[in-house]
Amino acid sequence: MVQDAFAQKKEHILQEISSSESDLSPKGSIDEPCIPIIELINSHPDMVTTSSCSGRVSVFIEGNKVRDGSHKSGGKGDGGKWLFVTHESSKVNGWIEKFKDMIEFKPEEECDLDSTVQYVLYKFEPLILHVKCRNFETAAKLFNIAMSCGFRESGVGSNNIVAMRINIKLDIPIGYKAPGDPQNVLRFFVSKRYITIIDQLSTRKFGENAIKLRELHNRIEVAFNPAKDQPSVPQPQTESKEARRERKRNAGLLRQKALLEAQEAANELHENAQL
Amino acid sequence: MVQDAFAQKKEHILQEISSSESDLSPKGSIDEPCIPIIELINSHPDMVTTSSCSGRVSVFIEGNKVRDGSHKSGGKGDGGKWLFVTHESSKVNGWIEKFKDMIEFKPEEECDLDSTVQYVLYKFEPLILHVKCRNFETAAKLFNIAMSCGFRESGVGSNNIVAMRINIKLDIPIGYKAPGDPQNVLRFFVSKRYITIIDQLSTRKFGENAIKLRELHNRIEVAFNPAKDQPSVPQPQTESKEARRERKRNAGLLRQKALLEAQEAANELHENAQL
Repeated sequence: MVQDAFAQKKEHILQEISSSESDLSPKGSIDEPCIPIIELINSHPDMVTTSSCSGRVSVFIEGNKVRDGSHKSGGKGDGGKWLFVTHESSKVNGWIEKFKDMIEFKPEEECDLDSTVQYVLYKFEPLILHVKCRNFETAAKLFNIAMSCGFRESGVGSNNIVAMRINIKLDIPIGYKAPGDPQNVLRFFVSKRYITIIDQLSTRKFGENAIKLRELHNRIEVAFNPAKDQPSVPQPQTESKEARRERKRNAGLLRQKALLEAQEAANELHENAQL
Repeated sequence: MVQDAFAQKKEHILQEISSSESDLSPKGSIDEPCIPIIELINSHPDMVTTSSCSGRVSVFIEGNKVRDGSHKSGGKGDGGKWLFVTHESSKVNGWIEKFKDMIEFKPEEECDLDSTVQYVLYKFEPLILHVKCRNFETAAKLFNIAMSCGFRESGVGSNNIVAMRINIKLDIPIGYKAPGDPQNVLRFFVSKRYITIIDQLSTRKFGENAIKLRELHNRIEVAFNPAKDQPSVPQPQTESKEARRERKRNAGLLRQKALLEAQEAANELHENAQL
């Protein structure tokens, strides 16, 4: 069978993802909770997932914050260090025990937080999925599905890649490492009790996140039907002039439909003018 | 002068924004730091800002978390209460003093955080801008500019609306209100010292945010030239067949150029496969 350009690109992407070398994450493999939605999406001829994270808790020492002359914060960065990462709700509680010998909990103590300290950050990050689509119609349809089930920070990027994002987050500075301190000393400006509280909140957020993942999966399953849907470009060798005219007409109608469906989301944005 | 459809829509949006009734935010007016970039964007015939926030610190009691049967967290929600909101770096320090009589700081105390408590959340949210563009080419160009200066969570939404988002955030649970407590008692599971630390971090984040806002402003100014750029659709009554053909050809070239420019951003996404 002769493949069209999108199908070739899709095959290439799937090969890259299945080879672990292209995975730059600390984890190095696809998260198990993402597998059903990835399989669903990739079973459709007009879509391919390019990256995914099912949601995770991470704790790390911030690295180098200066880049291009500007001050940057929030990422691990160069020289940063992962202390703990999990994609599994059941593994959140108790992570702190492994580090208890290197942490001083001093929630009340004065500290000199000049620009040279490296902060210790605790994050909960929700599901994120990137999906490359064959064309704008498919991207717009997927975007609308994501927005309609709560993935309000979604957007279409370059090359019809849809990023599906939701705002279930924690982003908490919990301590620091001073430049004069030995390698293995971290000073926390929160209590150990507080760590237990945010671990508990993360566990709940994993639950919310799993519900949203299932909802997204089900909506995509209903809206796209991989078993019946044909690629939205036919095999070049089989198309007659009439079929081509019909296909172009249908593509136009689909685009109109996508734009109409988009109206509601746009109106909502509009009503939120000036956050 | 006869206005085209986009110009009419733009005028309508600008009128809505200038009437305070359409503003649903607690603030109710356009943030001063956003005015230059809003004026720059709106001076271009192919773009109009539909919403903006220059960045803010907010502290609030979470409201009703249950919606549509699912558990939702992170927003003020129904029944929530704003304690403090500022868009100005200089007003961050000291907010806690106004509430000191109603807060008990107990960073070490055990507490029963069942599903009925309402959390007190502290957030830093960075600049966000929504810009409606006349066409996909303009939206793609603006999206690429945003991505290239660090607004990595940007995306194009429905109706060529570009959302420009950056990941400079804090999202911190700092306390709670138990259902049996009197209206004016809040229990904080962090220390007062910790509030001072996160206020200081917010002040720095306002600084980073201001740098990114300026950078975005300057890149847009260089890439689009409002003084010279003409609307990308001409006035209908003046266009000859030849002019129309030329315009269509140019639009095609522009689209090609936008897609080429997009390649780099897409490649970068791709390299980050499997976060």
